[in-house]
Amino acid sequence: MSRIIRTQPSAILSRAVEHHGFVYLAGITARDDTQDVSAQTADILAQIDELLEIHGTDNTQLLTAQVWLKDIRDRDAVNKLWTAWLPEGLAPVRACVEANMASPRCLVEIMVTACK
Amino acid sequence: MSRIIRTQPSAILSRAVEHHGFVYLAGITARDDTQDVSAQTADILAQIDELLEIHGTDNTQLLTAQVWLKDIRDRDAVNKLWTAWLPEGLAPVRACVEANMASPRCLVEIMVTACK
Amino acid sequence: MSRIIRTQPSAILSRAVEHHGFVYLAGITARDDTQDVSAQTADILAQIDELLEIHGTDNTQLLTAQVWLKDIRDRDAVNKLWTAWLPEGLAPVRACVEANMASPRCLVEIMVTACK
Repeated sequence: MSRIIRTQPSAILSRAVEHHGFVYLAGITARDDTQDVSAQTADILAQIDELLEIHGTDNTQLLTAQVWLKDIRDRDAVNKLWTAWLPEGLAPVRACVEANMASPRCLVEIMVTACK
Repeated sequence: MSRIIRTQPSAILSRAVEHHGFVYLAGITARDDTQDVSAQTADILAQIDELLEIHGTDNTQLLTAQVWLKDIRDRDAVNKLWTAWLPEGLAPVRACVEANMASPRCLVEIMVTACK
Repeated sequence: MSRIIRTQPSAILSRAVEHHGFVYLAGITARDDTQDVSAQTADILAQIDELLEIHGTDNTQLLTAQVWLKDIRDRDAVNKLWTAWLPEGLAPVRACVEANMASPRCLVEIMVTACK
């Protein structure tokens, strides 16, 4: 069946999966995890833009988001970039909690779902 | 496109997002986070009822739930209210893990998805 | 309405919920939580196979996955079984973070979504 479209599938995960008009993105972390939380967030949002574009959609069509922070006190720093990135009035639902991620240098990870 | 209906969109998140018959709610925390975990849970469930009603559905139509607890040992206290609230035989799938949330006073956060 | 199909609904959660061609599984933990993380993972993947089969689908149709680890350093051990289990080129999107789960002996929990 070809009804599922996967972007950059590795042995562990696909970077994005599309089905029935829904676009699911993996939990995205920064490509350079030596940077501070703001730089990591900016890089994650750029990656999300790229993945959404591959699937013919964009950040005006977000449905859900999950955000994980290594230190919940980084919430304001992440939200500053997040709100600047989101088109006005078009925010998805969201949950944001503290967690350790794949690498101890990962300060933030974001996973979104969109529609087309 | 008007295919996405958002309830109370802020700069950070919408309280609920509806698309294609699916209703996604944000991770909901208690309005008064000075209360104990049972009171916080009761308030969260009341908010979920309100948001589902705005989108023309209710807790008989839940698909998924995620629960975050500041202290996983509060699980029984939260489950007592959760099971009393859920219509019999109609439980969604669920995951419940421990995490720090936006405020150190948040003891519980619940995020659900429903259909119409 | 019969549009939602639930498998093994308890007072707290259903093991799986199906709606509109989407199959949502609960966060699955090992039936024997005295075992090590590899044995727990193998048991979880077997349970996921069983639940997907009940709903007429399988692990070639996975859309999303969330993985929680009690100790994030167990990631490689879990991924070894996870990648062996996944059909090549068909990985879902995924996020994997550290969290305490229902029991202190739970070392891993996996929640997936699939389509039919």
